[in-house]
Amino acid sequence: MRRVTLFAAVQVAATLLFVGAPQALAQSVETPASAVPAPAKAQKTKKLAIVLFPRYETLDVFGPVEMWGRLDDYEVVTVSEHGGSVTSAQGIETVTNYSFEDAPQFEIIMIPGGMGTRTEVNNPAMLEFLRNQDKGTEYTTSVCTGSAVLAKAGLLDGHKATSNKMAWKFATSQDDDVLWQSRARWVEDGKYITSSGISAGTDMALGLVSKIDGREKADYVAKTAEYIWNDDPSNDPFAVDEASAN
Amino acid sequence: MRRVTLFAAVQVAATLLFVGAPQALAQSVETPASAVPAPAKAQKTKKLAIVLFPRYETLDVFGPVEMWGRLDDYEVVTVSEHGGSVTSAQGIETVTNYSFEDAPQFEIIMIPGGMGTRTEVNNPAMLEFLRNQDKGTEYTTSVCTGSAVLAKAGLLDGHKATSNKMAWKFATSQDDDVLWQSRARWVEDGKYITSSGISAGTDMALGLVSKIDGREKADYVAKTAEYIWNDDPSNDPFAVDEASAN
Repeated sequence: MRRVTLFAAVQVAATLLFVGAPQALAQSVETPASAVPAPAKAQKTKKLAIVLFPRYETLDVFGPVEMWGRLDDYEVVTVSEHGGSVTSAQGIETVTNYSFEDAPQFEIIMIPGGMGTRTEVNNPAMLEFLRNQDKGTEYTTSVCTGSAVLAKAGLLDGHKATSNKMAWKFATSQDDDVLWQSRARWVEDGKYITSSGISAGTDMALGLVSKIDGREKADYVAKTAEYIWNDDPSNDPFAVDEASAN
Repeated sequence: MRRVTLFAAVQVAATLLFVGAPQALAQSVETPASAVPAPAKAQKTKKLAIVLFPRYETLDVFGPVEMWGRLDDYEVVTVSEHGGSVTSAQGIETVTNYSFEDAPQFEIIMIPGGMGTRTEVNNPAMLEFLRNQDKGTEYTTSVCTGSAVLAKAGLLDGHKATSNKMAWKFATSQDDDVLWQSRARWVEDGKYITSSGISAGTDMALGLVSKIDGREKADYVAKTAEYIWNDDPSNDPFAVDEASAN
């Protein structure tokens, strides 16, 4: 009897979550003016952290933020070496939520690309932070040359990964033990997910939404963002021959 | 003789600008590690301002910032009513460059959408700021329901414009004198350029790069960002029937 009651309770809770989710979601995106007030948003119990550094690439970060902001259970936060504000390669100043020192263990981390990665591959504090976080993450991800930093930290050894095609030699030269994929919009290898350059990060982000919350949810997120999703990780219009790569 | 010398000088300057531009551009995007040091970046003499307000939509802003950051003559800046930091609907805190009070005349303005537009259509300070800026702009633009605020300010009277298809009734109800276009990725009408929802802003932004710096430059910017540009303003996969619109 007790077992039946528990089962019923779980069913009710699951139904509430299912019914409540689209409405909670609707609070953070454009909704008709006539929409009835949505119920309180479900608690987001996990954290997805974007690792920012000076001269990160703007869209590497905010395409994924737009899509990941709609994940059911993950709050999107930002972290930087010293905390405080960090300025992107395009001059946008963002105030980060955590420093490396006061950051908790994050469930997901993402490191973007940008010219700043040329400095970060030689920043011991960055490499140590990534190594420590990676021990406890569900997913360790990157956009663009963010994968160069993950590679330099040794996290991609023996794993398939990709990077920006305009900076292919820089990225791949960080670690020969990575199975670099020169034709891929994004690459999933276990918990490591790396995307190609800049805009590819948004496609990868929706791929992760699909893995976590399901394909239907990912399609819904893309639709609400009026985003034309390149949903095939192997469809890479910007692939270049290894021989002619920069 | 003097006239010939002046002509020659202009030619030399134009040649330097042409040769210098791709290299200057390359400084701010991913480049091969072996690239020779680029010459000093040409001075950006004009300002393109993004108007931020609480609960703006993240990607409405940063897709265009990524593309417009590569315009030859325009510096991308941010402005908000009180200056200081403003938080997006997805929780990203951005420090703005100007307040309404200390803002100079901008050559281009863009107002994004997001749930915050529901407040801004009733904010006299916002509407007055937009009206005053618009008197001196080369282009007045919006992404998503940003066009609802431009419409409420009376700036789109008699002009063709579009908006987010998920919030169509809210946007179009702001002003009956706008020639609202329900099927459009973006709409150009003289100096007024309005885009459809969220991601459409990035396509519109490249359209403006093409108008200002030429199609070749726009294609180059899209390629460096590995962005699959929907370059046809009339190609709108998210169009809805007026009758069934929210």
